[in-house]
Amino acid sequence: MAVTDIATRTYNHNFRLDPIVRSLLDTDFYKLLMLQMIRHLHPEVEATFSLINRTKTVRLADIIDEAELRAQLDHARTVRFTRKELIWLAGNSFYGKTQMFSPDFIAWLADFRLPDYDLRKVDGQYELRFAGPWTHTTMWEIPALAIVNELKSRAAMRDKGRFALDVLYARAKARLWEKVERLRDLPDLMLSDFGTRRRHGFLWQRWCVEALKEGLGSRFIGTSNVLLAMDADLEAIGTNAHELPMVAAALAEGDEALARAPYRVLEEWREHYSGNLLIALPDTFGTTAFLRNAPDWLAGWTGFRPDSAPPIEGGEQIIRWWQAHHVDPRTKLLIFSDGMDIDSIERTYRHFHGRVRMSFGWGTNLTNDFRGCDPDGASGLEPISLVCKVTSANGRPAVKLSDNPAKATGDPAEIARYLRVFGGEGRTAAAVMV
Amino acid sequence: MAVTDIATRTYNHNFRLDPIVRSLLDTDFYKLLMLQMIRHLHPEVEATFSLINRTKTVRLADIIDEAELRAQLDHARTVRFTRKELIWLAGNSFYGKTQMFSPDFIAWLADFRLPDYDLRKVDGQYELRFAGPWTHTTMWEIPALAIVNELKSRAAMRDKGRFALDVLYARAKARLWEKVERLRDLPDLMLSDFGTRRRHGFLWQRWCVEALKEGLGSRFIGTSNVLLAMDADLEAIGTNAHELPMVAAALAEGDEALARAPYRVLEEWREHYSGNLLIALPDTFGTTAFLRNAPDWLAGWTGFRPDSAPPIEGGEQIIRWWQAHHVDPRTKLLIFSDGMDIDSIERTYRHFHGRVRMSFGWGTNLTNDFRGCDPDGASGLEPISLVCKVTSANGRPAVKLSDNPAKATGDPAEIARYLRVFGGEGRTAAAVMV
Repeated sequence: MAVTDIATRTYNHNFRLDPIVRSLLDTDFYKLLMLQMIRHLHPEVEATFSLINRTKTVRLADIIDEAELRAQLDHARTVRFTRKELIWLAGNSFYGKTQMFSPDFIAWLADFRLPDYDLRKVDGQYELRFAGPWTHTTMWEIPALAIVNELKSRAAMRDKGRFALDVLYARAKARLWEKVERLRDLPDLMLSDFGTRRRHGFLWQRWCVEALKEGLGSRFIGTSNVLLAMDADLEAIGTNAHELPMVAAALAEGDEALARAPYRVLEEWREHYSGNLLIALPDTFGTTAFLRNAPDWLAGWTGFRPDSAPPIEGGEQIIRWWQAHHVDPRTKLLIFSDGMDIDSIERTYRHFHGRVRMSFGWGTNLTNDFRGCDPDGASGLEPISLVCKVTSANGRPAVKLSDNPAKATGDPAEIARYLRVFGGEGRTAAAVMV
Repeated sequence: MAVTDIATRTYNHNFRLDPIVRSLLDTDFYKLLMLQMIRHLHPEVEATFSLINRTKTVRLADIIDEAELRAQLDHARTVRFTRKELIWLAGNSFYGKTQMFSPDFIAWLADFRLPDYDLRKVDGQYELRFAGPWTHTTMWEIPALAIVNELKSRAAMRDKGRFALDVLYARAKARLWEKVERLRDLPDLMLSDFGTRRRHGFLWQRWCVEALKEGLGSRFIGTSNVLLAMDADLEAIGTNAHELPMVAAALAEGDEALARAPYRVLEEWREHYSGNLLIALPDTFGTTAFLRNAPDWLAGWTGFRPDSAPPIEGGEQIIRWWQAHHVDPRTKLLIFSDGMDIDSIERTYRHFHGRVRMSFGWGTNLTNDFRGCDPDGASGLEPISLVCKVTSANGRPAVKLSDNPAKATGDPAEIARYLRVFGGEGRTAAAVMV
């Protein structure tokens, strides 16, 4: 007969809250790299981030209790960087470099807390906005997404029996391990976890990361999750995101400055970072337009992260650009991170193997693949396409065109203007699954 | 009905070993401070450490399985400092000082592993010796003691039922909490955990430390256990130990050099450390002799750690020495660490309160007080007086006289010589309980 630890059980009964975000390091590494640069160059910019559920059929406000959501957001606002975490940030080497973060930045982080939020229900969805200094609102992206996704998971599991839960996780584990076995057949694979924002839950992400560490060995190169990187002695992985060109574009005065904005951002980046952090994200306003006007010096960077074009077409387009700049693609790196899963990883790996260096950032389909795992046949655990995007900077609307029009965000009139400035060639509509 | 996690259960069934030492930081802070100095000044000295069970009635070799003991010692030899641990050592501040450990020392630690051991059974006891460079053998003291003590605990609990174990820990927890409640009545108390070496087990020490943190708040000033200090964001506490004067004395050429050895060690110490780390341990060769010949500059140090004289008599003797040196004891610190428990802490605190600053290092009676807790009435969990002492340096015998002749160690002829050189005044025999 099993014995229960009564004190633990009683303590658990009286839980006010099982916090989802327990550490400010439970975020993506690129947020910290970007934050250091934003604080250095743009401390005065105000930026608003907004939660956007692209899967409109899932009515989040009907699923997630508002009081619970507020309690989790409020709890996240109480969390500070601990002494141990700041020491690790200051002392660890990232991408082979020591002192990636300046002592001044680390000291500033010691006082950091997440700023206030604005939450309301509109038409079955949550409108969740973070307005304030860019140096603070940017840090809400990952915890806000992790909180909403985990609350959605919890809601879907609330009425399940223990055996149903046991079978649910058994199936999800078996599924992940099948993928691991297939990935082992790709000898030069470099793969990292990019699944924090879309995860089923923190503990599940941790299980997935530990499973990849045991299952893939050195082919698993690290995780974007800074807390898991610290705790599991893994490399923290990540570079930069769409918010940098989006804010630069929003603040540009006139169409000419707008056209130059995506490259100005890269100049700012290379002032701060070097080596394998010199990765360009080409798709914010369309990859074709980006490459057509890209400066020659960009061919000296380590690589690109195509994030919304279909991986093979997007990769070929970039390879052609390198070749036109007389650069051997085998010395360059492509990082694929847009909704990848086992099939597209295998296909992309086999297509490009030997022609270019590749790395895969595996997100939603790593840390939130419970499709078909529910013994009750319910679909409440299927992942949704939830993002938290910058929607305005200093009061001016922010826009993302993307290579996939279904992923565009922003005011329609502004989108039309951006399409006029950048051109719309090469964009292909595709269903956004995750 | 309870559901069991089958994978975890099966994994546990196949355990080859439940390791006692899982981290090289699971040691006392003073070992690291001393090690840095030893490596700097005495890298060539060979020192042998030996396990000594002063509680002869407990026949350890009949209780602890030799294969299990070897497996635990062998496992400890595989453990290395992890990247996270070294980063923390380099980046954390200790006693208010940053960079307590030099980059050179940290780099050296990265390759450190515990050296070989020599184990045999003699007359119902284990002879466990560590011979080799002092820079390596010194690091065995704490893990060797922790391993032997925890194996003794495990042996005593091997045949107990689950309810007996549940009640055992319930009683031990209740007993500790009673002590905490009494300690709360001492408003200016400063108390730290010194219980690593003598602990019942690692998990129990962690429970005790967390209980003191919750129960005593700021009156609990930290722990000597470096791993627990890191994990619980507590201060790491500790300064130096008897091995420094014992080795210096063993290496001294002739009686005059022997008489000077205890003070030469302090000169070496103050070259390396300052502030609250300037704590002298007066009892290695008898406190009376030590104070009689102590240099005047020692009155400028922060304080003393009387470790074998009865606390009130020992403290009074030191206060008289300060007064003779025209120093106000209220500016000075006494650290009491010899077998303290709730009664002696209360008595000592009340005796000296307002006359001198005090701090208590609470060891065995904090982390290994299961006396009377066993529902079967057995005594297998009672703590024993187990130490791991330096017994020779460069082949010459090492000696400790102590204020309590029952705690003296070393070759009888050498003890007689030391008594001739230092004098034996002020030493009082007392039973050594822990």
